[in-house]
Amino acid sequence: MAKIKVLIASRISQEIADMLQAAPSEMDIQFLPEGEPSRDHLSDVEILYGQLPEADFPFATSLQWVMQPFVGVEGSMYPAFKESPITLVNSKRLYGPQLAEHAFALLLALTRGINTQLELMRKKEWKWLPCVEVAEMTMGILGLGGIGRAVAQRAKAFAFEVIAVDAEPMEKPDTVDELGQLEWLPAFLSRCDVLTVCCPITPQTHKLLSHAEFDCLPEGSYLINVSRGKVIDEDALIAALKNGKLAGAGLDVTYTEPCPPDNPLWTLPNVILTSHTAGASQNIATRAMQLFIDNMHRYVKGEPLANVVDKEKGY
Amino acid sequence: MAKIKVLIASRISQEIADMLQAAPSEMDIQFLPEGEPSRDHLSDVEILYGQLPEADFPFATSLQWVMQPFVGVEGSMYPAFKESPITLVNSKRLYGPQLAEHAFALLLALTRGINTQLELMRKKEWKWLPCVEVAEMTMGILGLGGIGRAVAQRAKAFAFEVIAVDAEPMEKPDTVDELGQLEWLPAFLSRCDVLTVCCPITPQTHKLLSHAEFDCLPEGSYLINVSRGKVIDEDALIAALKNGKLAGAGLDVTYTEPCPPDNPLWTLPNVILTSHTAGASQNIATRAMQLFIDNMHRYVKGEPLANVVDKEKGY
Repeated sequence: MAKIKVLIASRISQEIADMLQAAPSEMDIQFLPEGEPSRDHLSDVEILYGQLPEADFPFATSLQWVMQPFVGVEGSMYPAFKESPITLVNSKRLYGPQLAEHAFALLLALTRGINTQLELMRKKEWKWLPCVEVAEMTMGILGLGGIGRAVAQRAKAFAFEVIAVDAEPMEKPDTVDELGQLEWLPAFLSRCDVLTVCCPITPQTHKLLSHAEFDCLPEGSYLINVSRGKVIDEDALIAALKNGKLAGAGLDVTYTEPCPPDNPLWTLPNVILTSHTAGASQNIATRAMQLFIDNMHRYVKGEPLANVVDKEKGY
Repeated sequence: MAKIKVLIASRISQEIADMLQAAPSEMDIQFLPEGEPSRDHLSDVEILYGQLPEADFPFATSLQWVMQPFVGVEGSMYPAFKESPITLVNSKRLYGPQLAEHAFALLLALTRGINTQLELMRKKEWKWLPCVEVAEMTMGILGLGGIGRAVAQRAKAFAFEVIAVDAEPMEKPDTVDELGQLEWLPAFLSRCDVLTVCCPITPQTHKLLSHAEFDCLPEGSYLINVSRGKVIDEDALIAALKNGKLAGAGLDVTYTEPCPPDNPLWTLPNVILTSHTAGASQNIATRAMQLFIDNMHRYVKGEPLANVVDKEKGY
């Protein structure tokens, strides 16, 4: 019986490649040679681990499903792929822990003055600084998927009142005190001492936070973004940072990445910028490969795949 | 009837002073003029808000109890005070939230590379960095008082396995998976991916963590200290940071404060040092004064005071 061709087009370590010994015996697994485009290796490939670039799409004539070892799917939302029957699997939920840890790293660095203290360290200056306690404050979470839920769980233990907005109706988790949909956004924002952006980028969320939305926030609130920079109108963000509406912003993502040198976010004193590293973790490659292997087993048994992306919704 | 004389010897804001309108009507509350020693204002004083310096002790002939609006009591443990019948009240438990927030600020700044990213920011350099995910790691908490419990609650939500050592037997809180006493220390330390120091300084805890104890830790663990610098033998700490036993240390306290300029902790790349600011919070002055007012009411009713320090134990 002919084997099922699988192409690994993402760079993975030997340790992660070794995990593929647990793949179903029906699979013929090949690795894309480094530096080569996938187009030359796609013939008869049914399963792809990685991303299918638009230019290579015409060569993927046998492709049934793609798993991308990351979350954001905007790179696959070109019309040909979106309209094709090819199933897209992403890594949603696998990134929750480290993204939530990064969100708290950014927030607490701002509230506890870690950025200022690190500057003092360079001068060997011991200087008491006022700090902001976040217990009993309200955290608003924009987007209650895998990342938002991981943030909510931690925020609850930090004694935040946790409120959340999501595009879709869903059951409220215990770690969230109030949950609403997008029409609640202005009233929701007016309560956010801390606003944590955890939503995907879609046509509906593009520049969702602009001048009017920042105006709704309480004076002196904090903004954390660990999902996608394009959710935020950066002109409005920069204005809110300059006029004191925002006490600070912790951003792992920017509208354009890498963040251009002339972007004021680099130099505003109340901003901490990290270089889209919130997804980094010593464990993520293992978790993603395990999901891929589990999905291959589901595929040969004819079961539905896990973590399938709704291409209409874009997540 | 003669009123009960109360001296406020700590500097407090007008807003906090206004809270004293809720004190019992039996109290005659006076404020120590700024810059004057308390000795000149202690006659007939029964209750002191602040600290009684050793030099002023002989003048406190009517003093019944002292409340200090902070936690560490080592400054009052001079023999005359320790042996006197004067009751000492401290602010234990009131500092839990902000100290736990500070502990996580230090830990997550290390694991998410916030220190390195802030250096990159100064160069406007966008650069992906590996980060360490702490979920599923083990956090060991040394000292399970108000601060240790606040840390445990947050650590549990961050998906840590939480283990703790305390000098005394006590009921294990739900947020702690395993709890032991000091004889468990070596085995406890061998499991600590993160060790968070939350214990008071006493003769028993002075340099409790020295070479032998650091040797017990797993390779590449993290040390966080938000309580007292003298719990740690700094020569041993610096050796552990240099030889890789510790991946990093986040320290709000040092053996000598201010930290002397020649202390290598200032310049080790895997250290984040803050200037004994973990107790800073916009809420702490209010919490401390509320406890003081509540205790004054207890005192006039003849009820036991809250937060009394065991002078023998030193906390």
